[in-house]
Amino acid sequence: MSSTEGKTITCRAAVAWGPNKPLSVETVEVAPPQAGEVRVKITHTAICHTDAYTLDGMDPEGLFPCILGHEAAGIVESVGEGVTEVQPGDKVIPCYQAECRECKFCRSNKTNLCGKVRPATGNGVMLNDMKSRFSVNGKPIYHFMGTSTFSEYTVVHAVSVAKINPAAPLEKICLLGCGIPTGLGAVWNTAKVESGSTVAIFGLGAVGLAVAEGAKAAGATEIIGVDINPAKFELAKNFGCTKFVNPKEHKEPIQQVIVDMTDGGVDYSFECVGNVDLMRSALECCHKGWGTSVIIGVAASGKEISTRPFQLVTGRVWKGTAFGGFKSRTQVPELVEKYLNKEIKVDEFITHNLPFSKINEGFELLHGGTSLRCVLHLDQ
Amino acid sequence: MSSTEGKTITCRAAVAWGPNKPLSVETVEVAPPQAGEVRVKITHTAICHTDAYTLDGMDPEGLFPCILGHEAAGIVESVGEGVTEVQPGDKVIPCYQAECRECKFCRSNKTNLCGKVRPATGNGVMLNDMKSRFSVNGKPIYHFMGTSTFSEYTVVHAVSVAKINPAAPLEKICLLGCGIPTGLGAVWNTAKVESGSTVAIFGLGAVGLAVAEGAKAAGATEIIGVDINPAKFELAKNFGCTKFVNPKEHKEPIQQVIVDMTDGGVDYSFECVGNVDLMRSALECCHKGWGTSVIIGVAASGKEISTRPFQLVTGRVWKGTAFGGFKSRTQVPELVEKYLNKEIKVDEFITHNLPFSKINEGFELLHGGTSLRCVLHLDQ
Ligand SMILES: NC(=O)c1ccc[n+]([C@@H]2O[C@H](COP(=O)([O-])OP(=O)(O)OC[C@H]3O[C@@H](n4cnc5c(N)ncnc54)[C@H](O)[C@@H]3O)[C@@H](O)[C@H]2O)c1
Ligand SMILES: NC(=O)c1ccc[n+]([C@@H]2O[C@H](COP(=O)([O-])OP(=O)(O)OC[C@H]3O[C@@H](n4cnc5c(N)ncnc54)[C@H](O)[C@@H]3O)[C@@H](O)[C@H]2O)c1
Ligand SMILES: [Zn+2]
Ligand SMILES: [Zn+2]
Repeated sequence: MSSTEGKTITCRAAVAWGPNKPLSVETVEVAPPQAGEVRVKITHTAICHTDAYTLDGMDPEGLFPCILGHEAAGIVESVGEGVTEVQPGDKVIPCYQAECRECKFCRSNKTNLCGKVRPATGNGVMLNDMKSRFSVNGKPIYHFMGTSTFSEYTVVHAVSVAKINPAAPLEKICLLGCGIPTGLGAVWNTAKVESGSTVAIFGLGAVGLAVAEGAKAAGATEIIGVDINPAKFELAKNFGCTKFVNPKEHKEPIQQVIVDMTDGGVDYSFECVGNVDLMRSALECCHKGWGTSVIIGVAASGKEISTRPFQLVTGRVWKGTAFGGFKSRTQVPELVEKYLNKEIKVDEFITHNLPFSKINEGFELLHGGTSLRCVLHLDQ
Repeated sequence: MSSTEGKTITCRAAVAWGPNKPLSVETVEVAPPQAGEVRVKITHTAICHTDAYTLDGMDPEGLFPCILGHEAAGIVESVGEGVTEVQPGDKVIPCYQAECRECKFCRSNKTNLCGKVRPATGNGVMLNDMKSRFSVNGKPIYHFMGTSTFSEYTVVHAVSVAKINPAAPLEKICLLGCGIPTGLGAVWNTAKVESGSTVAIFGLGAVGLAVAEGAKAAGATEIIGVDINPAKFELAKNFGCTKFVNPKEHKEPIQQVIVDMTDGGVDYSFECVGNVDLMRSALECCHKGWGTSVIIGVAASGKEISTRPFQLVTGRVWKGTAFGGFKSRTQVPELVEKYLNKEIKVDEFITHNLPFSKINEGFELLHGGTSLRCVLHLDQ
């Protein structure tokens, strides 16, 4: 039993007091986990676009003040009543996409979108009492995505935490909390890319590069990377991209460029930017009869996708994916094993490391275009 | 050898001289089939929406003068050089969707969209010499969809004709040339509806009712029919519909009505009208996580579908189908067998029979809302 069990922990967290303000690293109080909850000591967290999206005020449902962060790893500090999934000392990855194994989503083999704790996580609170476990001077601070990893300690639902191999290096595999599984799973679970396929990837950030890696592993023979930042191309070769297209260098619509390059279009395309015009291009660069396009990017609120229905009547398929379709608690530990067996890359996605106190610098890197992932070390 | 083999045949056909004019039943000349072609004596033809769509001038690529018609049956009169697929006397169904068994589409098991004769059929001519086989007083008349069944004799590509069981009654199975396979195949091939599924069908014309029949055969437990014409509901029960929604009786968006009726949405939906707003409703009434929507209806030219990308990111799939995904020459004969074995309905779709000379009355019936299919008898 740890000395903090059952007690409120006072620790550092980066609080987002409101949209469009820098995060404020300050002292917060983290209440003990209630029934069905787990308190985790976060050791490493990365910064992903969804954090920036909310901080920039672009999510109309974003709640403030809150503690952001959802791509992380840590160690269980204590568990609430009835929790059997993990124990203090277990190495874990918090999962913003829960897996209860009981709801109709979990019972379906077609989806990973567990609905169990959504009524709470969608409102920035915990399911047990629909309240927050974070506070600053008695004022409650909202949770974010059911994870809130920008804190030395966080409380998550037991259905939202994956127990992983204790041999895993937390400073690396924290990335398996969001971007990498999203890209790999989009290829393996959502599109189900077959050997010999042609693939186009729109956007070569961490998600797009994970798509490239997944496509290469699936045996795709041609992997076309599309980005307006040509600095991404050299790096993307290491992840499997075989050809590149910079939309800025073409007058024709980019779907036409790709159709011409591929004798009629690609078998699979992936949108990894969050731009609705690119989502259309990604669909329309697919081959007639069977081309499948997967939307991964998160578009600005209110934006809509469109196309001529003829695109679908002639055999193209339009899909999307969240967390790559992986059932989180079951499959994140499997991805950790793959990493330990050197079957998937993770280290290569980490372009920057910073002490936790420099989190605002991390956000700047994200907007800068040279960073894939910046890992924040909470022990520094 | 028939007495007409190798000679031009003079016979009756319904010529569309231009958009928005009634068809003119008059004498046309039908040249003998060239290499890879088949001349068919059409005995029965139905009228489908694509014929009306083109006649109404709504297809900007429609060519006039032409001979419309694509849902029919007949008997091979003679064959051109090199044709081995059929012989004079064979009972056949012309297939607007060809199947060459050689092109990249035919070699794929994911699509039925053979591309072999498309360069010709898209331009109203035959592939061998890129010319028409029809003329009136020496003036060429365009082919339509590679079938032109509104004629006592027509010439089609050998890859566009399915040889069927000689026991089949042509006055019935002519419907297996378009609407019925489209609906059945959308369920069986495109959506792959499983036993126990819930289904919503937008539009209860011949195509929508064939979807209902296919869904019932696939074991769907709830089949919701949506139509603004409540006269369709009683009939639709015979085809498998279990519940009905008339959008005119609801204030809320129809997708909301269906989501509420089905505890979160249907597993599969089908748009069988050709209205882009309904296509959106059909997608959005699907269940989060797995709901799949199939577009069958042909929208007015230039119209676009749209939705929020979140609909797809949360697991809905948007597809379309042409001729229900059936590989025509291979699978239309199988559907004829199913009809002969009483496994699928056909007779029930025939609401009217008319002599060929009354073809314009048939078009009026189509626009009237009481007809499913009107069969024209060319021997009358
Ligand atoms: N669906 C999910 O479960 C899920 C999970 C994680 C991330 N995401 C989303 O995936 C997207 C990508 O995330 P990321 O971390 O890789 O982002 P990132 O910013 O690192 O990468 C985006 C890339 O897109 C490129 N780009 C921008 N505009 C472009 C354009 N018009 N044409 C071509 N390329 C363009 C940028 O140069 C950059 O390389 C984001 O929208 C993120 O919110 C979705
Ligand atoms: N994709 C293909 O391969 C293919 C093949 C054949 C037909 N089609 C298309 O399928 C569609 C249906 O064909 P059909 O022969 O069954 O047509 P139909 O006219 O017999 O049936 C259409 C039905 O939709 C109903 N409807 C009209 N507006 C509606 C609305 N706003 N809401 C609900 N219901 C509405 C009508 O009352 C009617 O019952 C047409 O667009 C046709 O061109 C496509
Ligand atoms: Zn669940
Ligand atoms: Zn073919």
